[in-house]
Amino acid sequence: MGSASKNTFLPLDPVSFADESKTVVDFIADYYENIEKYPVQSTVEPGYLSARLPDSAPYCPEPLEDILKDVSDCIIPGLTHWQSPNFFAYFQANASTAGFLGEMLCSGFNVVGFNWISSPAATELESIVMDWMGKLLMLPSSFLFAGTGGGVLHGSTCEAAVCVLAATRDKALEELGGWEHMTKLVVYASDQTHFTFQKAAKLVGIPPSNFRLIETSFSTGFSMSPEIVRSAIEDDIKSGFVPLLLCATIGTTPTGAVDPIRELGKVAMEFKVWLHIDAAYAGSACICPEFRHYLDGVELANSISMNPHKWFLTNMDCCCLWIKEPNLLTDSLSSDPEILRNKASRSKEVVDYKDWQIALSRRFRALKLWIVIRRHGLANLMYHIRNDIAMAKCFEAFVRKDERFEMVVPRKFALVCFRLKPKAEEEDEGRELNRKLVEAINSSGRAFMSHAVAGGIYVIRCAIGTTLTQQHHVDDLWKLVQEKAQTLLINN
Amino acid sequence: MGSASKNTFLPLDPVSFADESKTVVDFIADYYENIEKYPVQSTVEPGYLSARLPDSAPYCPEPLEDILKDVSDCIIPGLTHWQSPNFFAYFQANASTAGFLGEMLCSGFNVVGFNWISSPAATELESIVMDWMGKLLMLPSSFLFAGTGGGVLHGSTCEAAVCVLAATRDKALEELGGWEHMTKLVVYASDQTHFTFQKAAKLVGIPPSNFRLIETSFSTGFSMSPEIVRSAIEDDIKSGFVPLLLCATIGTTPTGAVDPIRELGKVAMEFKVWLHIDAAYAGSACICPEFRHYLDGVELANSISMNPHKWFLTNMDCCCLWIKEPNLLTDSLSSDPEILRNKASRSKEVVDYKDWQIALSRRFRALKLWIVIRRHGLANLMYHIRNDIAMAKCFEAFVRKDERFEMVVPRKFALVCFRLKPKAEEEDEGRELNRKLVEAINSSGRAFMSHAVAGGIYVIRCAIGTTLTQQHHVDDLWKLVQEKAQTLLINN
Repeated sequence: MGSASKNTFLPLDPVSFADESKTVVDFIADYYENIEKYPVQSTVEPGYLSARLPDSAPYCPEPLEDILKDVSDCIIPGLTHWQSPNFFAYFQANASTAGFLGEMLCSGFNVVGFNWISSPAATELESIVMDWMGKLLMLPSSFLFAGTGGGVLHGSTCEAAVCVLAATRDKALEELGGWEHMTKLVVYASDQTHFTFQKAAKLVGIPPSNFRLIETSFSTGFSMSPEIVRSAIEDDIKSGFVPLLLCATIGTTPTGAVDPIRELGKVAMEFKVWLHIDAAYAGSACICPEFRHYLDGVELANSISMNPHKWFLTNMDCCCLWIKEPNLLTDSLSSDPEILRNKASRSKEVVDYKDWQIALSRRFRALKLWIVIRRHGLANLMYHIRNDIAMAKCFEAFVRKDERFEMVVPRKFALVCFRLKPKAEEEDEGRELNRKLVEAINSSGRAFMSHAVAGGIYVIRCAIGTTLTQQHHVDDLWKLVQEKAQTLLINN
Repeated sequence: MGSASKNTFLPLDPVSFADESKTVVDFIADYYENIEKYPVQSTVEPGYLSARLPDSAPYCPEPLEDILKDVSDCIIPGLTHWQSPNFFAYFQANASTAGFLGEMLCSGFNVVGFNWISSPAATELESIVMDWMGKLLMLPSSFLFAGTGGGVLHGSTCEAAVCVLAATRDKALEELGGWEHMTKLVVYASDQTHFTFQKAAKLVGIPPSNFRLIETSFSTGFSMSPEIVRSAIEDDIKSGFVPLLLCATIGTTPTGAVDPIRELGKVAMEFKVWLHIDAAYAGSACICPEFRHYLDGVELANSISMNPHKWFLTNMDCCCLWIKEPNLLTDSLSSDPEILRNKASRSKEVVDYKDWQIALSRRFRALKLWIVIRRHGLANLMYHIRNDIAMAKCFEAFVRKDERFEMVVPRKFALVCFRLKPKAEEEDEGRELNRKLVEAINSSGRAFMSHAVAGGIYVIRCAIGTTLTQQHHVDDLWKLVQEKAQTLLINN
């Protein structure tokens, strides 16, 4: 049994809890202090870590200092530093002190709020904060608990999509008269929609061949055409299919494109197709009055999701989902096992969030979003968004001023999609040139960007918006881009 | 734009990060210090919180002290205290200092390890720690990366079940020749299996009428009979169905029952049915050699999951899933969008965990489990399990010594299922009496237990194993049970 004994084994002793936690707080503060010293993208080779760590667990307890030394020596070199101010890849994942404090309280209380009674505060704060957030986005009251809808916090967009798809699937199957009609159900999205929707649709049993990828084009800024959607729906109906759900996006991943919600909503309503809006990235911007128009027509949608864990200063993970008819979610996802039966649930006066999501267990994520909103206030949250967009505008101006470069699509939000102009003789339209440029930038360790292909064109994506990014980082990034481009163009 | 400005808005400033985080560390330490002063089950009424909080977000930032005051005054009264040593309901959700430190580092780094390149350490540590954990459970190497399998951390059992079901579904549909065969697929579990499997099966599109609930009985301790399973499978095959997956449980939720893995495995193999083992609760106990026998026959299974966030000192959320053929998971769940394409993934030398789970985004949970294992060592982890089981044995002895009570089923692990013996004249076999007893105990605020119904019998579940529970809490619990029973029996 080793050396453990009742007296020495106190894994949650408040005094050592406070001591050790403060040591780790200082460790993390030090990490932020020094974060610019690390190469943004990790430079390790596959398998690097197994060479540094034992291949089985220790028998005896190890001191915290040994573990933290290994975190410094073995883990940090293998991190791609998402919190680095020089991280411009994918979409940012905003950490903040407020988000961290919320995570600490969530983890400290460690309650499992599957139903109301299992921790009423976890459920009620979530309902309140979902209404707060919905009001910040000026969602119609049909999406709020204060109205006739409601919201829930998921871990990811895919989870939200799975639940929405299951809800609408089950409603459709009931109307069609049984599960054998599953192969008739069709889901619509654009070729710019996040791939997570295809994955979610397949997960809930929609045959992949029933997923329609509506083609977009450069001419419409890669936004979805309501006419093409209408025609696809009409074709499917003619062929005996049942159009189920249309996913529109505010701020697509490749280029930040915005689908025309109102027009798509009209088509969806006409054919009784569920309209889901994925505002994972750009939803955050819609708290600013000047960007709210991107959500015009949201009242025609059935559900909408956005991710505070991207651009809203909320540490991972946190995805908001609002739905107009929560009963469709709970009809599809609810369960009533004896062990969870209780008076409050029976009364129907309370929300049992287990019936709004995939899992039974759930973390108290609402604390985090609540603290993020209160600690910053709408004023600073808007400042955060506006400041990032101002920096993106500045980067866009750098690109436009240098005639070797071009913007591939107009900037949307804080995402700049640009490239080195291909030379006339380049058969691949500059694909290889720009691929090399991204590689040169990233392998410098001084910044990290990613790429996309839109309309066949290879674009470099500069997503501005980590919590620590300031103007001088953007200035330095542009100098780095120019420097690497210069070298490439000389050697090309 | 409010009062925000570039100079004052620093949402991740290392100095204030450290200061504010330490304030919250002290707040949580104080919570643990005083946790026994709160009623274990919250006594608030539905809607209590909306009466105490504003109905929309503040415009201006608020000081941390105001927020923490609201946590004390508004949130804590609405918590059911899962970390209280007097919490004996459901299954425990172990917090520990080590688990908390791991959560802090995870949230502090806030990396999104969807594929290898997006943070190599997050992927590699997860693979290493899954092998560590697998070895602690003495899983055959066919489940380990060191062998031919592999493991992944999910957030919940339901998520793991969805992924396993989708993998086996897609393999079966491919063999059957198309998605129109979905209505043929059948899933098997017992009437004691966690309801999450029914939910997961429905989520992936298995018609609910194709979910077979194998009946269990008191005589076999509510474990699943291989003969009944065989006969159900044979019946389904005769009727043209395709048996897909059988879920066996180590430590069921109602009574801690253990399904006979080896015998079920033989049946599953014979009919080429996927065997999944759900060891969410009792898997942790199998790190002790004396309990490892419950996993005998695991080599016949295709996948197994267990939850360190229950009984393994790991704060929420953390669910381990091992699978013998990871390629079946990735065949079903993988995606290859341009934006994520990279050399490492193309080389096939690395794991991209986005293809092992539902979501794209993922937290660095491996840090948490790694620190939990190292900080305690196998020695103390076994001590933790054994100590809880010793306390459960003690509670069982209390029950057996008092002739007003009876054990409904033999104790398994640290779960004691007991009841007040019904009087001969009680038509409901003591259901109302025991329901009242649970209510009296819970409403005292001094302890919190839950109930189950097994074989038609209403049982009181005493799940021992919160991190802070010590022998004197179990002694006090029994005194409370006796006191409330005495009052009930006198008034009855």
